[in-house]
Amino acid sequence: MRINQERLKAAFDGLGKIGETPDGGLTRLALTDADRLVRDRMVGWMKEAGLRVSVDRMGNIFGERAGTDTVPPVLIGSHLDSVPTGGKYDGQLGVLCALEVIRSLDDAGIRTRHPVTLAIFTNEEGARFQPAMIASGVMAGKIALEDAYNARDRDGLRLLDELERIGYLGPEPCVPRPIRAYLELHIEQGPLLEEEGCPVGVVEGIVGISWTRLTFYGIQDHAGPTPMRIRHDALVAASDVVRAVRAIPGLCSPAMVATVGRLEVSPGVPNAIPGKVVMSVDIRDPRDEELTRALGLLERAARDAAASEGVSYELAHYWRVPPTPFDPEVVDAVERAAKSLGARHRRILSGAGHDAQYMAAICPAGMIFVPSKSGRSHCKEEFTAWEEIAPGANTLLLATLELARQIR
Amino acid sequence: MRINQERLKAAFDGLGKIGETPDGGLTRLALTDADRLVRDRMVGWMKEAGLRVSVDRMGNIFGERAGTDTVPPVLIGSHLDSVPTGGKYDGQLGVLCALEVIRSLDDAGIRTRHPVTLAIFTNEEGARFQPAMIASGVMAGKIALEDAYNARDRDGLRLLDELERIGYLGPEPCVPRPIRAYLELHIEQGPLLEEEGCPVGVVEGIVGISWTRLTFYGIQDHAGPTPMRIRHDALVAASDVVRAVRAIPGLCSPAMVATVGRLEVSPGVPNAIPGKVVMSVDIRDPRDEELTRALGLLERAARDAAASEGVSYELAHYWRVPPTPFDPEVVDAVERAAKSLGARHRRILSGAGHDAQYMAAICPAGMIFVPSKSGRSHCKEEFTAWEEIAPGANTLLLATLELARQIR
Repeated sequence: MRINQERLKAAFDGLGKIGETPDGGLTRLALTDADRLVRDRMVGWMKEAGLRVSVDRMGNIFGERAGTDTVPPVLIGSHLDSVPTGGKYDGQLGVLCALEVIRSLDDAGIRTRHPVTLAIFTNEEGARFQPAMIASGVMAGKIALEDAYNARDRDGLRLLDELERIGYLGPEPCVPRPIRAYLELHIEQGPLLEEEGCPVGVVEGIVGISWTRLTFYGIQDHAGPTPMRIRHDALVAASDVVRAVRAIPGLCSPAMVATVGRLEVSPGVPNAIPGKVVMSVDIRDPRDEELTRALGLLERAARDAAASEGVSYELAHYWRVPPTPFDPEVVDAVERAAKSLGARHRRILSGAGHDAQYMAAICPAGMIFVPSKSGRSHCKEEFTAWEEIAPGANTLLLATLELARQIR
Repeated sequence: MRINQERLKAAFDGLGKIGETPDGGLTRLALTDADRLVRDRMVGWMKEAGLRVSVDRMGNIFGERAGTDTVPPVLIGSHLDSVPTGGKYDGQLGVLCALEVIRSLDDAGIRTRHPVTLAIFTNEEGARFQPAMIASGVMAGKIALEDAYNARDRDGLRLLDELERIGYLGPEPCVPRPIRAYLELHIEQGPLLEEEGCPVGVVEGIVGISWTRLTFYGIQDHAGPTPMRIRHDALVAASDVVRAVRAIPGLCSPAMVATVGRLEVSPGVPNAIPGKVVMSVDIRDPRDEELTRALGLLERAARDAAASEGVSYELAHYWRVPPTPFDPEVVDAVERAAKSLGARHRRILSGAGHDAQYMAAICPAGMIFVPSKSGRSHCKEEFTAWEEIAPGANTLLLATLELARQIR
């Protein structure tokens, strides 16, 4: 039994039009009009597939295919939001593979003991509302519903208001509940599967992630008549930290990555010395103690940069998740499925956060990776060939059948 | 004969309410609604003073006080726009001192051979539309009217459309014409007058200014699963250049200043490796050959940073004005005026560009500086005490009388 690759591709091509950028990428920020459109389309397809659709108070969407018994469901899915000028595979592919799994079960007339439920999580990327994975975080009880509702985008719009505006403020409680397993297919977003020629990554867990916000306060002044000797330039200090962040992994661990992704300069005009810079620092490592060490180095770099330029600063480690190991039973089920397909596979750690990370706190969870061309993601160049997607999608199908206990 | 300091202060306090920020600074970008309001207010006051008001095709406003002869006018004035979160003295003070000079002439019933014309130039700052001083640039024949009209702000709005929207697209041609002299009072925006206890700066000229736009193109990718070894981060390269720009004056000339004021990161989210950075580099020096040397160092720094990070770049030196000496007759008239008042004064160069720079190309031009507290400008802390403004305003009055040939 296999998924229908042509049907999957058609669904992918259709859904990818919503929020498509002129150059073939995707900009579909959470709770925007594009997000509303893509949700509406998915809900339509889920209803056509006979799923019982419900929406919870965080806008997470669930579509249940009944099991033979009243036992907890196997959840399969991912997210539909993207970063600005991102790609079409991150998130969307996992949702559509889950839909294709359900359609394939229907085609084959297969019953399972556990319900199989398609799950779509709100605002996974954290590009519009921080923190990332906010809705699975609420579901796992790790983020207070009220805090999530009060998250604001850069224009000051509140998550709750935007949920309501697009019509996805649902009635179901967003709380932990009995779940047989959560399984998510996703692109790797790194180069390893491609480098090693493996179409299937059996994900053993997710690295630890730390997000820091660093603000430098210099003295805003005119760029012309202000001699170099009296300057206190927030951007000069921030640039020192960008360099320091680049060097931190080399001082800690070969698996570590460290990134300044956001850096905003005020007032941001050519003829004014920057008075303020707000920057983000994202550090990830498979080992929690290495993260702690890296944050110590970051704090020292910020202190040194501020002292050298005579500026002040604020540093807030505002989000941290420890490394997340996935459930051995789920990981083994994924590996068995890949093996039974004869697909080349390898065990792998995820360097990116995923909703599976929060789900792992409340149920047995796991993930399947498919390759990312050149390791690229969060950009229009995101790409995975269909012959590399099919083994992953079929792995999802077979692992789901094992976890949901196929009846016949 | 002296200006009326109380009346000047009252006008300043009134005008400063338009575009005032909650913390007492000023945000009054060119051709915004705030700019419309402040223009309307000024035109009202100019008409009350009996001036013949005209507006040209760049929105420059002129208010003429007739002379006894039909000879070219002495223009006195400055600009009313500000940078974002700027201060209340930059520009506005010069306009109001010019108005006060005219009111004082009226009070004393003084006639002059040459007309005295209050001049207010559009978009001096270059904060909204580039380049800076665009309207005096058109008037001097250095910038084509069509290019100026097509300048767009960050939201893509065109200067011409915004001129029309706020009702200041006038009928008068914006072209060179016979002008007896142009004289502008302005805050120094640097620390020298304050450091030396001089209320009056006799400005001998303006330093040369170069603006460069530098764009780095890296590879946008996910900050998590992308190993450090395969990264091409536009922001890391840009940060190297920020550091290099800081060092350039030390390698060239003690009078040089160099600033990165704008730096925009795309996509600018915590979990994406920056794929693109656009930055500005502003370099100024009293000697043109030093500017050329500095631009060579900047080009080398950009090349080295790009090579080191494996990114590409574009570099455009898109604006350059050579050092501008002011007219000796005007400079001497300013110095004589300060001396006759018994005001402490010194000759000084301007590190900031001013409309006087373009005006110097078509008529005898000069400037008067008043001190800036702590040398600060383009920020809410901009400040000059009234006892330090009065000597400068009276210098403007007396120099205007000399240049316009007082009759009685």
